[in-house]
Amino acid sequence: MPLDTSFPIPVARSVADLRKIVFGWRRAGERVALVPTMGALHAGHLSLSEAARAQANRVVVSIFVNPTQFAPNEDFERYPRNLGSDIEKLARQGFVGLVYAPTAAEMYPNGFSTAIRVAGVSEGLESAARPHFFGGVATVVAKLFMQAQPDVAIFGEKDYQQLLVIRRLVRDLDIPVEIVAAPTLREHDGLAMSSRNAYLTAPERKIAGFLNTVLGEVAAAVAGGKSPSEACNTGRARLLKLGFAAVDYLEVRDADSLDPIEMLNEPARVLAAVRLGGTRLIDNAPVLPKAD
Amino acid sequence: MPLDTSFPIPVARSVADLRKIVFGWRRAGERVALVPTMGALHAGHLSLSEAARAQANRVVVSIFVNPTQFAPNEDFERYPRNLGSDIEKLARQGFVGLVYAPTAAEMYPNGFSTAIRVAGVSEGLESAARPHFFGGVATVVAKLFMQAQPDVAIFGEKDYQQLLVIRRLVRDLDIPVEIVAAPTLREHDGLAMSSRNAYLTAPERKIAGFLNTVLGEVAAAVAGGKSPSEACNTGRARLLKLGFAAVDYLEVRDADSLDPIEMLNEPARVLAAVRLGGTRLIDNAPVLPKAD
Repeated sequence: MPLDTSFPIPVARSVADLRKIVFGWRRAGERVALVPTMGALHAGHLSLSEAARAQANRVVVSIFVNPTQFAPNEDFERYPRNLGSDIEKLARQGFVGLVYAPTAAEMYPNGFSTAIRVAGVSEGLESAARPHFFGGVATVVAKLFMQAQPDVAIFGEKDYQQLLVIRRLVRDLDIPVEIVAAPTLREHDGLAMSSRNAYLTAPERKIAGFLNTVLGEVAAAVAGGKSPSEACNTGRARLLKLGFAAVDYLEVRDADSLDPIEMLNEPARVLAAVRLGGTRLIDNAPVLPKAD
Repeated sequence: MPLDTSFPIPVARSVADLRKIVFGWRRAGERVALVPTMGALHAGHLSLSEAARAQANRVVVSIFVNPTQFAPNEDFERYPRNLGSDIEKLARQGFVGLVYAPTAAEMYPNGFSTAIRVAGVSEGLESAARPHFFGGVATVVAKLFMQAQPDVAIFGEKDYQQLLVIRRLVRDLDIPVEIVAAPTLREHDGLAMSSRNAYLTAPERKIAGFLNTVLGEVAAAVAGGKSPSEACNTGRARLLKLGFAAVDYLEVRDADSLDPIEMLNEPARVLAAVRLGGTRLIDNAPVLPKAD
């Protein structure tokens, strides 16, 4: 497949094209960062490529809506896709050197039959509602790492459990990639930026911002000495009263292992998934033990 | 961990030491081959490192008895281990540049929780008796590839299903390693060389050589037009009559996909696992469609 140069940034559609460019950079001694995305780029993604630029002199953004991390009942078909406008946004940043937008056939050719499973941190939370999700994520991210062989890759704290799954994957398989976490970018009312926010109706959008507020309240309560389970019960009731249709989970976990905690001894994280109409939103916030 | 130089070949015990040496070679433009082994080296292994030497100017042999590919009832504890004599054998070859003999803690540190599963070619045959085997193999081989980052790796045709699992793993995850197959080395009576042959008593050893004979008979019968199932029935009866205690499987499969076949249209392979006393032996032979 020839390199697609009809966009303002070169677009590699195949592993061969991707490697030709990236290996050229590496041979020249340049440090390469990869930002894996599913497209539908918003300011949050652009902050990830900014973080990539701070880590490396060459930035590759991959755009691939990965079918294996969607369940049959999920939004794979309607997930927003617009390669042209995604690339324009990246081009405006002025430093992204390559977009890697492989075809599904390039990623999963006939006969594909390998799966990676990360136990532990991948269990519970997101996996309760989406049991195949992290298997799909771990496998596609490992593939992207093998394909591009970047020095460093950037993942957002917005998908906090995913970030920990990727860290575990890289450590367990000794994949030679450094993982850098980037903070969550938020709208003025605190709503974490997400491609799925586009699904929200105007009234839903008004409610959505309170998710971050409640996460902050739970974090403050736990930091102040309240028991995690009590704080989460209060938080769940608050969310439902504020108009969220359902709370898939609202939990305080150890910030590194994601083990459930009963007392605040180590850094912890509040994590939540909620429903608003047909849309599922996730977010998280740090809980830091108070300095006495 | 310091590089162990008390042996006639340097021995890396950690990923860091391994990479220091291998990356130095690669920076100097040298091509690196890896030969993964579980030690207990015999002439068969030495033929793998010979094959490696033909592919690259630097040869690394890894020696690691991988606990995750043994079931609790298998021979992990009694599997033969002798690092000193293994290294002496490699040193006599004169060209092996590094032995990588990681500790179990280096390969599987606390909290390790990632597993790779290759479906398809890994199913049936060896998996019937050893359901966790190929999961353990795929995961440890992926780790060795990530750790050493060789240009090429050598696997013996003796473990034919394993060879196909590794080929599938590398293709599916886009691991940048070339896989080269090396033919099976045999004793004078045709017995495939294997570390497990050491378990055989003298009378068992005499019977063992007939496994290869019968595989050849089955392959010839199928090549001559006999149906695979009929040829295998005859072969199984022959093996039991010759003194093998049990036949775990004796099957003719497609040589690439390992799909069961009913007629010989594409290259095929006869594969078998048999028991002799407490020892399990495997072997395989090619079936080539006759040129008319």
